[in-house]
Amino acid sequence: MSKKLTSRAEDYSKWYNELVVKADLAENSAVRGCMVIKPYGYAIWEKMQAELDRMFKETGHQNAYFPLFVPKSLFEAEEKNAEGFAKECAVVTHYRLQTDPDRAGKLRVDPEAKLEEELVVRPTSEAIIWNTYKNWIQSYRDLPLLINQWANVVRWEMRTRLFLRTAEFLWQEGHTAHATKAEAIEEAKLMNGVYAKFVENFMAIPVVQGVKSESERFAGAVDTYCIEALMQDGKALQAGTSHFLGQNFAKAFDVKFANKEGKQDYVWATSWGVSTRLMGALIMTHSDDNGLVLPPNLAPYQVVIVPIYKNEEQFEAISKVAEDIIGDLRDRNISVKFDKRDTLRPGAKFAQHELQGVPVRIAIGPKDLENETVEVARRDTLSKQVVVLDRVSIVIEDLLEDIQKALYTKALNFREEHITTVDTFDAFKEALDTKGGFISAHWDGTTATEDKIKELTKATIRCIPLDAKAEEGVCVYSGKPSNTRVLFAKAY
Amino acid sequence: MSKKLTSRAEDYSKWYNELVVKADLAENSAVRGCMVIKPYGYAIWEKMQAELDRMFKETGHQNAYFPLFVPKSLFEAEEKNAEGFAKECAVVTHYRLQTDPDRAGKLRVDPEAKLEEELVVRPTSEAIIWNTYKNWIQSYRDLPLLINQWANVVRWEMRTRLFLRTAEFLWQEGHTAHATKAEAIEEAKLMNGVYAKFVENFMAIPVVQGVKSESERFAGAVDTYCIEALMQDGKALQAGTSHFLGQNFAKAFDVKFANKEGKQDYVWATSWGVSTRLMGALIMTHSDDNGLVLPPNLAPYQVVIVPIYKNEEQFEAISKVAEDIIGDLRDRNISVKFDKRDTLRPGAKFAQHELQGVPVRIAIGPKDLENETVEVARRDTLSKQVVVLDRVSIVIEDLLEDIQKALYTKALNFREEHITTVDTFDAFKEALDTKGGFISAHWDGTTATEDKIKELTKATIRCIPLDAKAEEGVCVYSGKPSNTRVLFAKAY
Repeated sequence: MSKKLTSRAEDYSKWYNELVVKADLAENSAVRGCMVIKPYGYAIWEKMQAELDRMFKETGHQNAYFPLFVPKSLFEAEEKNAEGFAKECAVVTHYRLQTDPDRAGKLRVDPEAKLEEELVVRPTSEAIIWNTYKNWIQSYRDLPLLINQWANVVRWEMRTRLFLRTAEFLWQEGHTAHATKAEAIEEAKLMNGVYAKFVENFMAIPVVQGVKSESERFAGAVDTYCIEALMQDGKALQAGTSHFLGQNFAKAFDVKFANKEGKQDYVWATSWGVSTRLMGALIMTHSDDNGLVLPPNLAPYQVVIVPIYKNEEQFEAISKVAEDIIGDLRDRNISVKFDKRDTLRPGAKFAQHELQGVPVRIAIGPKDLENETVEVARRDTLSKQVVVLDRVSIVIEDLLEDIQKALYTKALNFREEHITTVDTFDAFKEALDTKGGFISAHWDGTTATEDKIKELTKATIRCIPLDAKAEEGVCVYSGKPSNTRVLFAKAY
Repeated sequence: MSKKLTSRAEDYSKWYNELVVKADLAENSAVRGCMVIKPYGYAIWEKMQAELDRMFKETGHQNAYFPLFVPKSLFEAEEKNAEGFAKECAVVTHYRLQTDPDRAGKLRVDPEAKLEEELVVRPTSEAIIWNTYKNWIQSYRDLPLLINQWANVVRWEMRTRLFLRTAEFLWQEGHTAHATKAEAIEEAKLMNGVYAKFVENFMAIPVVQGVKSESERFAGAVDTYCIEALMQDGKALQAGTSHFLGQNFAKAFDVKFANKEGKQDYVWATSWGVSTRLMGALIMTHSDDNGLVLPPNLAPYQVVIVPIYKNEEQFEAISKVAEDIIGDLRDRNISVKFDKRDTLRPGAKFAQHELQGVPVRIAIGPKDLENETVEVARRDTLSKQVVVLDRVSIVIEDLLEDIQKALYTKALNFREEHITTVDTFDAFKEALDTKGGFISAHWDGTTATEDKIKELTKATIRCIPLDAKAEEGVCVYSGKPSNTRVLFAKAY
């Protein structure tokens, strides 16, 4: 298989698909729409998990685990939520296989082992969790309940793409219960803010924090907060959502509590999640035609050392230098891999590490031994420098910080250049067609207009930014009055 | 709900079930046989995961993720494996729900959305993984492939018990591929050893390492290595298994590689796993009639501080002392919780922390303030001591080490007292009836004898210990010759 990628200009979508596979991140499996996350891709996901988990715990949340299956009668209890997910539910109907009497060595579903009630493979866990919370919450003393779950979920999507939209994906879902409406709204906003901080600081991806319009809201939510990122092809990607659920699930599952005055009231809820979809955002924000570009915070190894040698003696001398560097880097908490495979030439190793986005590459050859130097290359700019041995670890520590910042700044500049403010529908369409990105426009607040714009342009309202200013204007489509601009975009 | 547990002597099984629920570890869910792992129980599982994950990585393994579903045609490819699990498979047959035309607000399975091929919810992942490995392995250069997965699996068990046997459980499953038989056997043994080390050092549970007889082997394995622990009621518990799979899966999925000489050969395999069942082993090894007893390595918090006060002024003075202690303990990497809830009396807090197995409790009252002391109580022995303030953190550091060791020693002594060597079937039955535990006896090596003994006594061969000595003897049941003793026991 050629390592050469299709370029982004040539075919962005093909570039993405090829990169995911060739950089060993993930691949399609034998199960329609389900992916295999390969070790290199999974190592990146583990770094995301570790940091998110730390942030969740820091904000007072605990992890727990709830069943994979949701009995149909519970699933349908909150009607809007059920309606929203019904069309993409994998359903378990039987609990046994048996030998197929007609085909030797084959199995079939045992018709005698039909479940009395079908089980839905969770597309999201509000139903099973709120059915459980019913028994955990009696009094205000039991609140707030701040729980997160790391889990797999299944949504039977018809058109799937690795990481971006898969039938099974990995995610975390927070589910919290509160005594007051204000506290639940605060929690939903807090967690949206945690997501924004994580994605910006850790993944080096700038996001817009906002709230969804009614038609883009989570099924069963009163309000959906979100973080929206912009990909290099000018399409937006919803990177995380946090929902204020009101008392909808508490009412559906009859979850009441006695407040301080002893009065019974329904509990207020939030839920919030990010998923392996973030891998897609990561790839499409930073990568280039040579392959993946990883922010140092997320790199399975931040530095790779490639020895260049002609004989065993040189290899040993280089290894000695490399081991010293490795020791120094590890003292600085920098992860490093010494690529001493003898089955690949240095050029092939360079290409592979470039394709896999290793932030910094050190090459050490015979000349370097003589001069007591090494060659240091950074993946994001592809620039190289010669560094004297006793400065290597300090130079690399600074370089990693630089790369992390540079990636964010580059993505931020791109995003800023791709927010176009328009006041007419013609300008709207032109900006969308020629430039893509976010279109900041007035909207009359109706679903009818939103639908019409989507029908005509394929752009949807990504969010009403939390920091949107009050500004009198008229809807770009209907001409009706509007008091704030919203962000439209074509989206993943 | 009363916090008082049924005693072990009264009803061991009831004691276990009550403890799991009352100590807030887990509970049954609305889905038959599936559990909810509550935050306190999940925090213990997370500690197990973190240490195991570290040990797997240290031995060269990487994590990855494979699909939840296995298409039926892949599932049935390795016949013995399929046959072994067919009877407990949850099967997805449909991918959509729709509004029920006969019942308003209800959903039903959409008969139009029947899958062409049914999907088995993974009971174990050899099939889906080896079908993937087929594309990953071409040459000896691709080997060994050392991969682990953290996942949920489903086995539709008819009789379930929290942690010990649940329809869905959490586990890790390692799946490795090797160029030679010897290397695969070495890997299977290595990982069984890693499990033994983890369970003994980290969980303070002594285990016997051994190999299974044919009838107790994993479906599809050539050999199953295991670690067997002994519970306080004299029943054995299989705490982990590691399988040498030979070339069975490679042949079923046609996974061949070119060796160094360019010759094609089938790949050799292992798989190995431990699960949330370990939580059951943990509980039943160390706990007592007052509740859970946790080895310090696994405790969500190792120390709890309970203030005893009559007024706000005392509370503030105590808090000041407590904060100093917390700082000192955290400097020593000791996790500590300050239980300053004002909704519970100290006695109720003591009872709760005892029930939840917190290894060390510090109580601070007004007298302690005067004397510059605190009261330190250890959970395992329930003994107390008065400690002067400036010695608290060093005393507790030592105490935690002591507790970790004492729990292991206590369990080891119990286990050693409960291995009975017998030479007649009468002695076998008597030991089993009066004392329980492991029975070390000669066995003729046949499944027929093993089955007969099981039928007569309910005892099964737990393992042939790896350190079993060659010893001429005759089978305790058949009188036929035998050259080594094996361990029998009733088992979970």
